[in-house]
Amino acid sequence: MGVPQLSRRVLQRLMRYYRFLVEVTAKRPVRTITSGEIAEALEIDATQVRKDLGAIGLIGLGRVGFDVCEICRAIRTTLGFDQRHEAVLIGAGHLGLALLNYPGFATFGLDIVAAFDVDRRKLGRTIGSCRIRSVDTLGSFIRQRRVPLAMITTPAEVAQQVTDLCVANGIKAIWNFSPTQLTVPKRVLVYHEHISLGLSVLAYHMNGRVSPA
Amino acid sequence: MGVPQLSRRVLQRLMRYYRFLVEVTAKRPVRTITSGEIAEALEIDATQVRKDLGAIGLIGLGRVGFDVCEICRAIRTTLGFDQRHEAVLIGAGHLGLALLNYPGFATFGLDIVAAFDVDRRKLGRTIGSCRIRSVDTLGSFIRQRRVPLAMITTPAEVAQQVTDLCVANGIKAIWNFSPTQLTVPKRVLVYHEHISLGLSVLAYHMNGRVSPA
Repeated sequence: MGVPQLSRRVLQRLMRYYRFLVEVTAKRPVRTITSGEIAEALEIDATQVRKDLGAIGLIGLGRVGFDVCEICRAIRTTLGFDQRHEAVLIGAGHLGLALLNYPGFATFGLDIVAAFDVDRRKLGRTIGSCRIRSVDTLGSFIRQRRVPLAMITTPAEVAQQVTDLCVANGIKAIWNFSPTQLTVPKRVLVYHEHISLGLSVLAYHMNGRVSPA
Repeated sequence: MGVPQLSRRVLQRLMRYYRFLVEVTAKRPVRTITSGEIAEALEIDATQVRKDLGAIGLIGLGRVGFDVCEICRAIRTTLGFDQRHEAVLIGAGHLGLALLNYPGFATFGLDIVAAFDVDRRKLGRTIGSCRIRSVDTLGSFIRQRRVPLAMITTPAEVAQQVTDLCVANGIKAIWNFSPTQLTVPKRVLVYHEHISLGLSVLAYHMNGRVSPA
């Protein structure tokens, strides 16, 4: 395919470029942008920006820079947002329901096709376009439908058990929203969503120490 | 005070070191750790780790490395987790309720003292230790109690309006969970919580391109 292997860091920076360009173009019509402009807005070194865009085959033209649409298209293709990815969500508590109701996932090709919970009172309810099912049927659902991604929003105590069940049934990736570390085989990717990064910046600021931009 | 001004990047890395050390010590008793061990676990350059720890006054001892408790204490003090910070939450939807029920904030000194919503049916309910109040009283609450932080979990359409109200009443920082950009004066810090960074890594992996560790 000629597609390079990109590190997690590069992928996340590409996502930040993408988000920035979508926001900029939503405000005013912009056709081209330089690596320096992206770099300044995101506080990243301009050389790094050029290197990252180069890694996905984009080369800027001197002072004119890059075509915005071209960057966006290349990033979407590289990250795989133009593909449809099915996901299951496990744990239909407040956070689970917030994610089920989040309208933004479709833009990135993510489609939550089922939600699972242990609470019998929740079963059968429909949230978004998703029916809440018994966790007893989770394994067979993943296996039969070959669902690649599980979003885990259970309490920490049961997250590993749910993960093991997903892994045993062939899941490829876990998006972990529960506040605990998960152990998985090497072939499975875990992305742990942490709330604490933001808190570090906010608490520091509230202490009156500095105003990070 | 002799406290250095740290950039957002440094603060976030310090938070990652802290989280990593708390996780490690929860699993097994560890008294000392080297910058190389931290660097390897988090995929950061070891020189960078030493530089960050040096910036908060920590110097490792050759092969012995750093005292784990000392690192944790220094990071907590630097980031301000040993101080109590009051916050209000605006928007008692699913995400708002998930945050109100999250038990982990206390560890970082964060105390959500009130939640606000426009929906009259929600008013007066108590979530966690927090009563849901009418958004009509938000401004005076922030001003009188001098609350420094607002967590915004409203729909995107009203987030700017709520932000303006908070800013007019002296808020210092905004933790933005709504999917929209906010405009604030320079003295106010906005931290925008994005869900899309994780998605970039996950979608790339599901496309079968690579398995970022």
